[in-house]
Amino acid sequence: MAKPWATLGIDLHLEPAGPGLRRGLTDALREAVRTGRLAPATRLPSSRSLAADLGIARNTVAEAYAELVAEGWLTARQGSGTRVAERVVRGPVREGAVLPQTGALGSPSVGAAAAAAPRTTTPPRRDRSRPRPRPRPAYDLVPGTPDLSAFPRAEWLKAARRAFLAAPHQALGYGDPRGHADLRAALAGYLSRARGVRADPERIVVCAGFGHGLSLLGRVLRARGAQRVAVESYGLPPHWRQLTTAGLSTHPLPFDELGTSVAELTHESAVLLTPAHQFPMGVPLHRDRRATVVDWARRTGGLVLEDDYDGEFRYDRQPVGALQGLDPEHVVYLGTASKSLAPGLRLAWMVLPSTLVEEVTVAKGHVDTCGVLDQLTLAEFLTSGAYDRHVRAARLRYRRRRDALVRALALHAPHLHVTGIAAGLHVLLRLPPGTEQSVVQAATWQGLALHGLTFFRHESATTEPADALVVGYGTPPDHAWAGALEALCRVLP
Amino acid sequence: MAKPWATLGIDLHLEPAGPGLRRGLTDALREAVRTGRLAPATRLPSSRSLAADLGIARNTVAEAYAELVAEGWLTARQGSGTRVAERVVRGPVREGAVLPQTGALGSPSVGAAAAAAPRTTTPPRRDRSRPRPRPRPAYDLVPGTPDLSAFPRAEWLKAARRAFLAAPHQALGYGDPRGHADLRAALAGYLSRARGVRADPERIVVCAGFGHGLSLLGRVLRARGAQRVAVESYGLPPHWRQLTTAGLSTHPLPFDELGTSVAELTHESAVLLTPAHQFPMGVPLHRDRRATVVDWARRTGGLVLEDDYDGEFRYDRQPVGALQGLDPEHVVYLGTASKSLAPGLRLAWMVLPSTLVEEVTVAKGHVDTCGVLDQLTLAEFLTSGAYDRHVRAARLRYRRRRDALVRALALHAPHLHVTGIAAGLHVLLRLPPGTEQSVVQAATWQGLALHGLTFFRHESATTEPADALVVGYGTPPDHAWAGALEALCRVLP
Repeated sequence: MAKPWATLGIDLHLEPAGPGLRRGLTDALREAVRTGRLAPATRLPSSRSLAADLGIARNTVAEAYAELVAEGWLTARQGSGTRVAERVVRGPVREGAVLPQTGALGSPSVGAAAAAAPRTTTPPRRDRSRPRPRPRPAYDLVPGTPDLSAFPRAEWLKAARRAFLAAPHQALGYGDPRGHADLRAALAGYLSRARGVRADPERIVVCAGFGHGLSLLGRVLRARGAQRVAVESYGLPPHWRQLTTAGLSTHPLPFDELGTSVAELTHESAVLLTPAHQFPMGVPLHRDRRATVVDWARRTGGLVLEDDYDGEFRYDRQPVGALQGLDPEHVVYLGTASKSLAPGLRLAWMVLPSTLVEEVTVAKGHVDTCGVLDQLTLAEFLTSGAYDRHVRAARLRYRRRRDALVRALALHAPHLHVTGIAAGLHVLLRLPPGTEQSVVQAATWQGLALHGLTFFRHESATTEPADALVVGYGTPPDHAWAGALEALCRVLP
Repeated sequence: MAKPWATLGIDLHLEPAGPGLRRGLTDALREAVRTGRLAPATRLPSSRSLAADLGIARNTVAEAYAELVAEGWLTARQGSGTRVAERVVRGPVREGAVLPQTGALGSPSVGAAAAAAPRTTTPPRRDRSRPRPRPRPAYDLVPGTPDLSAFPRAEWLKAARRAFLAAPHQALGYGDPRGHADLRAALAGYLSRARGVRADPERIVVCAGFGHGLSLLGRVLRARGAQRVAVESYGLPPHWRQLTTAGLSTHPLPFDELGTSVAELTHESAVLLTPAHQFPMGVPLHRDRRATVVDWARRTGGLVLEDDYDGEFRYDRQPVGALQGLDPEHVVYLGTASKSLAPGLRLAWMVLPSTLVEEVTVAKGHVDTCGVLDQLTLAEFLTSGAYDRHVRAARLRYRRRRDALVRALALHAPHLHVTGIAAGLHVLLRLPPGTEQSVVQAATWQGLALHGLTFFRHESATTEPADALVVGYGTPPDHAWAGALEALCRVLP
């Protein structure tokens, strides 16, 4: 079929039928947008009329549209139909490329965060070398970013002022690669008190986000001769990639109702775990398994990498203390300000076994890599009690959201099972078998950013796959929360 | 000789004579301090009386003392003799180790900065795996750190407040790996205006210091198959190490009165240069050579890495524009806030050829690595004119210091030749042949941190070695400047 595409006024050369048809339509449309034949903001015909025009199934057109919306070349908004995206350039680009629309500052998670963040998610196409389109959804329920509108700006500025005016001049020089001593001391106090970490400031290394810390650890392990690192069957693909980039292979451990099955550990050099709140399954690692993994580390000399990404946010029971408290010489504790405050601070921390401090510091590169002002401000925030106050307020707000989410789901989708609600900023919503992909597509279509569980499944995982949504309720600002919840309920089967 | 060391009350087991004697004495003293047999603050006997006690040459004792002072195990202050340093732990340590004295926040350059900084110098022992002692000199004339007491704190806080309160919430999320768009736009304007850089915000990548940028470029070049990078005969060893860590070998180009001899470039993949103000020799790259190196890059596909570390500070002539302006597709421009503001900000920037943007961004790791608040504040600082005002004031102050330095040298050491005075924060002071080492040692002995030219010489350099001091006049705060100058004049031959 090679006929002028009347509805749209451009020529398309499509294969007559079969699996190549949808792909051909998608490619042709993308090319038309890229080259400008379809101008920005142009309204596209409805899938029904375009399908009629082309003489193909309506579903084929709808799927092509959905894919291009997901890629950011088109936008779909309720009431205004499907349009060609504006040309707002963002992200690494080749000169001259026409890029699809995205928010000027990036959308909070499907955009900048989801594309790239160590602590969040990535669009499936991110490894391609062509420009990565980033749509801006109307609502965002992708887990990984807290409510940025609730960042305590005034308090932070006050703390910055106090900390900065009190700091000696030398603090502005080239700093200790482990981070500023004041921050390390403040973190040691906080982590010991709030998370049961055995934290000596001399063994704390401040880093520019969890991903930075994990990447340093990966390089140190590789330099020590490590090859295999065990990971969880479900987790964040960017973390696994940090390890493979460092030259390590990742091997997923099975997962069951007690959490990750650490009994399967053998001769791996290390294991990366989220013991307090498995991400994204939402359960704590069972007590017996906590003991098992520490035993394994002692017996084999292996290292446990404890990712304590949202240990602050627990609602219904006592917090689960850090695994590191059981054996600080075999567990690396990793924490971050990205969930409790904001990812934009680029502040995270590791508490290291004494034997790792020097190697990690050298791998970090001889000078501090985090701005000293933010470090001093966070130290002041921690010691003045402002951090605790902020976390308490945030916990209350997120708990209310969680309650609203659970209530709404009970009302609109009583047949669906919600788990992992006791802590953190996301829940797991089980779906009927075979429905995950279509629900996620429907959500995208509605301008709702949402990730299915499949996204977080390790490609070598042997655990039986399950259909589910990982619903993050941290990201939307308060004014958008009710709308996000409504949009979610609309797309549920 | 194995006799009780009466003067000090401890036993020493020393070889009878020869080259092992001084080393044996040094090691024994270090060990006595490390294990606590010599308690902190203990006053040591004079070198004369200890030498008499041991029956060895006074010089041997003096040299051992000097070495341990340089390593930080001992301190030497005029009037109070030589003492065992206090135990202030700093830097990467093994647990239980007794560490030598240093300032709680690190001395501005021989301490934290000199040990590690991409833009400054390192003590010769930094690659050893044992704890790195860091002495705190009374005066500091090591180049590499600006006057931190002159950091515009109030202005910076005001800019931070304005920038932060104006920023949308999304700015606090996971950011563009190239850095915040506002900062890249502000830098593009500034660099184009002040340094003649052809700067497109899309090709700017913000990084956590020059060393971070260089290390990213090194990794990208290595991944492209590069093996050799040409460097200058004189420069900063930590920069060369950044490249070797990335898997590249560094090959020094000859140096003469016209600057680095770029005609020797052949099949290197890249060349690292300081064209505006050779570090540490202090001359600009000759006009013809600027053309030659760009020709080479075009002809061979090589890359010029332009380190423009102190382009803002030029006193006697028109600024030398950035080489990058000649060919932005073959020159990477690298600039930093470490000299114009403070290293503690950890903010630097690269302007990349379009073909490198994506690779560098990927190497940087998918998310921004610099805190967004400092980025937004610097953007506000640049666009509001506060940066220009600060640089103008700093230029005036440094120029006065330079004038005082040149006057003092003309008065106290008229036989010594001073060069490289037209720009930057350091001068080169030629010394009579064979005197450099003893002058540096005498300075250390007097509590004056000072580096000889030898420190900055590439180990494979073929250029004839020369005795000289690289005198940095940026570091001392105003109140210490006169004292530092006096101390310098005292140690000159």
